Amino acid sequence: MNRADPEAAIAEAAKLCSNWGRWGADDVLGTLNFLTEAKRREGAALIRRGASFSLSQRFDLNGPQKGWRRRTNPVHTMLDTGTDAAAGLQGFPHGIGGADDVIAMPLQCSTQWDGLGHIFDHGRAWNGRDAATTVTAEGDRVTGIEHMAAHVAGRAVLLDVGRAVGGGELPDGFAITEAHLTATAETHGVAVGRGDLVLVRTGQLARARRDGWGDYAGGPAPGLSFTTAQWLHRTEIAAIATDTWGFEVRPNEFDHAFQPLHQVVIPHIGLLVGEMWDFEALAADCAADGVYECWLTAAPLPITGAVGSPVNPVAVK
Amino acid sequence: MNRADPEAAIAEAAKLCSNWGRWGADDVLGTLNFLTEAKRREGAALIRRGASFSLSQRFDLNGPQKGWRRRTNPVHTMLDTGTDAAAGLQGFPHGIGGADDVIAMPLQCSTQWDGLGHIFDHGRAWNGRDAATTVTAEGDRVTGIEHMAAHVAGRAVLLDVGRAVGGGELPDGFAITEAHLTATAETHGVAVGRGDLVLVRTGQLARARRDGWGDYAGGPAPGLSFTTAQWLHRTEIAAIATDTWGFEVRPNEFDHAFQPLHQVVIPHIGLLVGEMWDFEALAADCAADGVYECWLTAAPLPITGAVGSPVNPVAVK
Amino acid sequence: MNRADPEAAIAEAAKLCSNWGRWGADDVLGTLNFLTEAKRREGAALIRRGASFSLSQRFDLNGPQKGWRRRTNPVHTMLDTGTDAAAGLQGFPHGIGGADDVIAMPLQCSTQWDGLGHIFDHGRAWNGRDAATTVTAEGDRVTGIEHMAAHVAGRAVLLDVGRAVGGGELPDGFAITEAHLTATAETHGVAVGRGDLVLVRTGQLARARRDGWGDYAGGPAPGLSFTTAQWLHRTEIAAIATDTWGFEVRPNEFDHAFQPLHQVVIPHIGLLVGEMWDFEALAADCAADGVYECWLTAAPLPITGAVGSPVNPVAVK
Amino acid sequence: MNRADPEAAIAEAAKLCSNWGRWGADDVLGTLNFLTEAKRREGAALIRRGASFSLSQRFDLNGPQKGWRRRTNPVHTMLDTGTDAAAGLQGFPHGIGGADDVIAMPLQCSTQWDGLGHIFDHGRAWNGRDAATTVTAEGDRVTGIEHMAAHVAGRAVLLDVGRAVGGGELPDGFAITEAHLTATAETHGVAVGRGDLVLVRTGQLARARRDGWGDYAGGPAPGLSFTTAQWLHRTEIAAIATDTWGFEVRPNEFDHAFQPLHQVVIPHIGLLVGEMWDFEALAADCAADGVYECWLTAAPLPITGAVGSPVNPVAVK
Repeated sequence: MNRADPEAAIAEAAKLCSNWGRWGADDVLGTLNFLTEAKRREGAALIRRGASFSLSQRFDLNGPQKGWRRRTNPVHTMLDTGTDAAAGLQGFPHGIGGADDVIAMPLQCSTQWDGLGHIFDHGRAWNGRDAATTVTAEGDRVTGIEHMAAHVAGRAVLLDVGRAVGGGELPDGFAITEAHLTATAETHGVAVGRGDLVLVRTGQLARARRDGWGDYAGGPAPGLSFTTAQWLHRTEIAAIATDTWGFEVRPNEFDHAFQPLHQVVIPHIGLLVGEMWDFEALAADCAADGVYECWLTAAPLPITGAVGSPVNPVAVK
Repeated sequence: MNRADPEAAIAEAAKLCSNWGRWGADDVLGTLNFLTEAKRREGAALIRRGASFSLSQRFDLNGPQKGWRRRTNPVHTMLDTGTDAAAGLQGFPHGIGGADDVIAMPLQCSTQWDGLGHIFDHGRAWNGRDAATTVTAEGDRVTGIEHMAAHVAGRAVLLDVGRAVGGGELPDGFAITEAHLTATAETHGVAVGRGDLVLVRTGQLARARRDGWGDYAGGPAPGLSFTTAQWLHRTEIAAIATDTWGFEVRPNEFDHAFQPLHQVVIPHIGLLVGEMWDFEALAADCAADGVYECWLTAAPLPITGAVGSPVNPVAVK
Repeated sequence: MNRADPEAAIAEAAKLCSNWGRWGADDVLGTLNFLTEAKRREGAALIRRGASFSLSQRFDLNGPQKGWRRRTNPVHTMLDTGTDAAAGLQGFPHGIGGADDVIAMPLQCSTQWDGLGHIFDHGRAWNGRDAATTVTAEGDRVTGIEHMAAHVAGRAVLLDVGRAVGGGELPDGFAITEAHLTATAETHGVAVGRGDLVLVRTGQLARARRDGWGDYAGGPAPGLSFTTAQWLHRTEIAAIATDTWGFEVRPNEFDHAFQPLHQVVIPHIGLLVGEMWDFEALAADCAADGVYECWLTAAPLPITGAVGSPVNPVAVK
Repeated sequence: MNRADPEAAIAEAAKLCSNWGRWGADDVLGTLNFLTEAKRREGAALIRRGASFSLSQRFDLNGPQKGWRRRTNPVHTMLDTGTDAAAGLQGFPHGIGGADDVIAMPLQCSTQWDGLGHIFDHGRAWNGRDAATTVTAEGDRVTGIEHMAAHVAGRAVLLDVGRAVGGGELPDGFAITEAHLTATAETHGVAVGRGDLVLVRTGQLARARRDGWGDYAGGPAPGLSFTTAQWLHRTEIAAIATDTWGFEVRPNEFDHAFQPLHQVVIPHIGLLVGEMWDFEALAADCAADGVYECWLTAAPLPITGAVGSPVNPVAVK
């Protein structure tokens, strides 16, 4: 890997990892095609205790966004309040009162899925489509996140690389390699394979909780090495998610680069990528009982034409 | 039930059905307390084929909202597009391009959960709290939907009253009684009990899809009769959802009233209520295989202080 | 004018009316260049009584938008309320309380200016610029409405064509020609010339107020004939505004067309166009005193990169 | 003035300065009642050269808001772009293309007017009204900013206290007293009186432009001393605006206080207050020609029920 030439490295990886055409010209699901009914049955068997865990950060103004790419934290306001209701100001009969609310937020502001229309390589979107006509100001006219609405439920594996390799947390700039992933899985006693939803904990979110957000949204972070592209392709996993802003290691592993692994895995592999997930409660439980696999439902809101979605993933063990 | 006196009927039902104090003074979960780990194990056993179904409508401007109570349809806009990326306008290195998006929407605009802070009775919120200090312009300071983030996963039962009683669809204004619910469950061969997530299909959404929205958002609709309050309490279900705008029958069963059943079930029973769900695909499958129970995850977005949340419920059979 | 060939008619008009290059390659003001300091002195002399008039509709959910092109009415919500303040819930010292609010709205939803980046002709924006690189998902990177912030104050002329030609209101579909404009000015005893802000009242808004919005936003309307393009160019006016949704007559005067006059006047003439203005109070006053000219300030909000702006124009006589 | 007892000082000032009932029980204009037609004629005479100045900051994400009271900077997004138009993706006939946009913003985020419903004193709003029923979650049901739409045009006086007293800029925490105001007016050779729109430049915005926003939104700032309440009342000015976030000096002049001058001038005097205005260009011009009075139009957007409005004030000399 030539640090000075990300473009060549990306082209090489893209060629080795391409899934274009694998599920037909009309495909809108990418690696979610690996998540079969059989995989769901396998995942369901992992619900042993019935304990459930939310893997979502809270959506509010106390999030990490600082305006980069016009990404802001969610703004939640009330249309009606209990205060008004109690004061008899709402005009409803027989003592009923109500409260309603609204939200305005970037779909990429907190715990999220990146849809297939989120990243392009030289003007090409997933499956080789023309980015220009696929994702316009109208939204994603082909691969909108709404197509994934029913699919994201199955077997999940937590790879707590932070604990297994970092003694709790990985430092910013730490590049997680295939060797780290494999060693972590081995330590945990779990296998990763076709159709799995892979959760990679770095520990950075725990650090941000303790020390303040700092540059959590876009700054230095532990994350997947560019060199894991082939592992992500070869294992045929259905999706991957991390507890960091951007899934891959930051700064990126080239002299002048921006999210090169995204450029391979989304448009070429068709991989569903989750970011800013909160694994803390689940990871503590896994560390306690030694079981690093579970049932996971992480259903995006079917916002028509969206290139991503906020999500509250729920894991059940 | 005196049609001329909803206030008395509500007071009577509230008295008979109150769960105030049942789970302590600090409770923020209401009937979700019935959804235990044991219940989740029971639900997990219902994942037999691994087939999954989204029970969510799509979130876009083609929804039914017309501005009542300032409820509008979701507005989704793009921050970056593939068209810009393909035209080389984004300023990123090595050929990477990206698309981002934002949404602005009422939390009650489409497929949703009503949180415990959504409805009040004479200035009282769930568990007897003062509505005035519980849900202010800041949001729900006590029972915000974020507290439910990890909980809504368990056994669901579909009661397709539309099919069982209405031959497909119930007409607008049809009040579903306990007898209808019981008969439907019997026809389906399912039992409803403590901790279940109950899905009641009326067929109105199918009609709206066919005939146009009309007054789907707030107008006449089939729905639960006010008289079901005690059944909803006695069965100790964890949550209920319908395919209509407002869960209960419209027009309401009193001369001058507005959503009287809400006034009992949310503040007094502490019941989680879902509205505008889409049961069409699931119901067709249940009609085909005769199995009306399944695993359901319906995870609200943990929007801090929200009195409701959009949701993409995913059922797995 | 061949009704079957709008494209040729537009090309012909564009050629005859082009102001490209007239104010240099870097121009971002278009016909506002005609609005000189001398013109402002002339306008100031028209402030005789000191009576002021707002020419803005109110911004709220009761507007005419129905979702076309994702244009919605403004959504205004409160961040803090007097109800909360009076209930002592805000946590401020010494009895102070406050209310704040937010708005979400399309910039084209009500009384507005169309900026120079609002309309393109075959991929060309004002002054011959490439539309693709001028107005991206980032906004208008060259001719954003912020550049006009200080300029829109000067002499205005009201042409009440509705009264002068239509006996009060023009019917929908009525095409206002140069002859109508000239006759109206003559009837009013006013001259229209270089640097003027021209206000054309059709009376359609009065009708919508009386009869309901109907298809005010996008449907049939009186408005300027396509044939006025040369008059709009030759008179060297600084801006024009109407009380209709779209400035030009609807349906348009070709068999298959969409706002062909826009396609000439914005990219080629560089004309500032106002829509959905409310002339009712001003027009009644002008009819009463016979004075159809006044001072006008119609200052767009300097939203960086915006292709339009809501505006509250204030006329003073 | 007892630094330890703001509440008593506020009560005393409120008593001395109250305008409650002065313009009748139904008044919705407050001190704008002082801005008469005669005053407008006087102001119009100040348009001598015809030079115009925008006194507005730009509205974009680069503003000073950091989330306090959920105040964020404006978020501007595109609904349609020139890039899409040039790529032929919009589906319009004869080569026309278009761009539309939307904005989401707090009304208090940048250059603004505080409406009469913005601040309360012990649950009382302007004119002695009950804050609880005046400004609910619906908005200001009585004194919404829409009522001021036609009124804010008249004579303005710039008091460049920054230049006259501070040699350019006043330091943060500098309390501007009546003596400073009077001395500045004298230096400038202008008189301040009934119906005037008074513009007070501190120079803090110039400093923020040079040094970065820092805590411009809410932190230490020069501004009016609490002791100016009686001057603000006695002079019978129509409105006042500053180039700071909060109009009065920060930290406030009591041990534990929050904007005590607001608590007097808005609910008791009924004074229209402007904040975050940009006087830099106008002040430079005034310093150059020695003329510190001008015509000013500062028209709020008539957002129904709003307690404030963004504004682009335009001064003409």
